Amino acid sequence: MQGYFTEQSSVEAVNTRMDKSINPRLAEVMGCLVSHLHAFAKEIHLTQEEWEIAIDFLTRTGQMCNAERQEFILLSDTLGFSMLVDAINNRRPKGATENTVFGPFHVDNAPIRKHGETISLDGKGESCLYEGRVVDLDGNPIEGARIDVWSDNSEGFYDVQQPGIQPKSNNRGIFVTGPDGRYSFVGIKPVSYPIPDDGPVGQMLGHLGRHPYRPAHMHFLVTAEGFQKLVTHTFVGDDPYLESDTVFGVKETLVAPFERIENGSTLWHSPFDFVLVGR
Amino acid sequence: MQGYFTEQSSVEAVNTRMDKSINPRLAEVMGCLVSHLHAFAKEIHLTQEEWEIAIDFLTRTGQMCNAERQEFILLSDTLGFSMLVDAINNRRPKGATENTVFGPFHVDNAPIRKHGETISLDGKGESCLYEGRVVDLDGNPIEGARIDVWSDNSEGFYDVQQPGIQPKSNNRGIFVTGPDGRYSFVGIKPVSYPIPDDGPVGQMLGHLGRHPYRPAHMHFLVTAEGFQKLVTHTFVGDDPYLESDTVFGVKETLVAPFERIENGSTLWHSPFDFVLVGR
Ligand SMILES: [Cu+2]
Ligand SMILES: [Fe+3]
Ligand SMILES: [Fe+3]
Repeated sequence: MQGYFTEQSSVEAVNTRMDKSINPRLAEVMGCLVSHLHAFAKEIHLTQEEWEIAIDFLTRTGQMCNAERQEFILLSDTLGFSMLVDAINNRRPKGATENTVFGPFHVDNAPIRKHGETISLDGKGESCLYEGRVVDLDGNPIEGARIDVWSDNSEGFYDVQQPGIQPKSNNRGIFVTGPDGRYSFVGIKPVSYPIPDDGPVGQMLGHLGRHPYRPAHMHFLVTAEGFQKLVTHTFVGDDPYLESDTVFGVKETLVAPFERIENGSTLWHSPFDFVLVGR
Repeated sequence: MQGYFTEQSSVEAVNTRMDKSINPRLAEVMGCLVSHLHAFAKEIHLTQEEWEIAIDFLTRTGQMCNAERQEFILLSDTLGFSMLVDAINNRRPKGATENTVFGPFHVDNAPIRKHGETISLDGKGESCLYEGRVVDLDGNPIEGARIDVWSDNSEGFYDVQQPGIQPKSNNRGIFVTGPDGRYSFVGIKPVSYPIPDDGPVGQMLGHLGRHPYRPAHMHFLVTAEGFQKLVTHTFVGDDPYLESDTVFGVKETLVAPFERIENGSTLWHSPFDFVLVGR
């Protein structure tokens, strides 16, 4: 006989009900979730009215989602949960380039471009030369690494947010390293932008006194045969939101130099090397 | 300067960002939630793929909700969270009748009926006489207590689930105690029924090897001037689901006698006294 539910035995009452033989990992994950959620309600003495507000908030969050909008990912992001899951699953040795969140604006099959080519097709923004090497932990160049890059335009929007307004594949491209491991391309110095804040998550941020901005960043997805996938950004070092990224994506090692150069129409230079870890 | 996000300092990184002056209680609740959710992800080493499954599950749960269906309440119920919030907010001295979950099928302004009247209007099911007293902790009768009762019919459906099929206010009514604190009415011996299990929560129960049934119960909402509101059920003592109520609503003190009597058309007798606590 199982015990009936009591406040004291609440976790046990729920978790002894799970048959761990059907999907052992799900039962383990849910058992752990129940224990932390119950501990939360007990610690904070959650009221009935607060529970009703939470049910309503979660419902509205689900109903805000559609093909273009994922409000639950925004919730996870703004509570640092997405970054935590990323961190737990991408622990790397010192010296390796760190991961950060993937974000919702990557597009598969961006155009493969030649070294030095520009990814900025709308002619807007301050031009910046990105260059560096892809190397292993010993500093040896990695040949044939694919560097998939994407950023917003100078108005803070990704091309996929403005179809018909921005050129297709604006500020997007894939570069492949040669034997020296080098890459280089011209993009813009990206600008900070707000995550969508006209839904329940934006309301939550408002009540918590938080802004919805991400500091300016260039996205990188770097893959090479035999090495762990690297999902990261480089951040513009002088951005005012560096220390308050609303999704907590900034890591100290990912803040990149953006040096003023004024070389023809190119105004900035951002050197950055990517250090991959073998699989 | 705030520290950047790290796996180790994840909770601090998020919670130092909250301005506690705008809505101090919300900041306190969210800070506590962040700390338990992060501890959960760290303890279980949540993978990226599991995180994606969770986002999808929560999204589908939100999108299952409409005017008649609240899937997030079902989720809260089946994880014992609703019962825990109920328990935390309704701690009562020994001897007082215990609370249990309200459930989704209460209707405001049910008909007020006379002592001994029947609430079963569809003529289905096994007739049962419910009677007892509403008293205070010292056993003194409480006059003018309102006893709002509701149950499913013999097929396991509440009237509001079958508009046009069941008579309006079938198995529903409000009774008011006289100076002796007594109530009595005729209903049916209720039957066990499944919570709606054709959505994400039903799928979850399936993966965890859990059935969706609630043991048979009669709902009671008892209110009286100067006393704490009592939201409870009485459970039919021989129900096979008593020890596995899918919403964990059963408490030992709420399992009521259902005695076979065969008095005319009335086949059962369920005596139960309600003990209220002063405010
Ligand atoms: Cu916890
Ligand atoms: Fe971005
Ligand atoms: Fe019920």
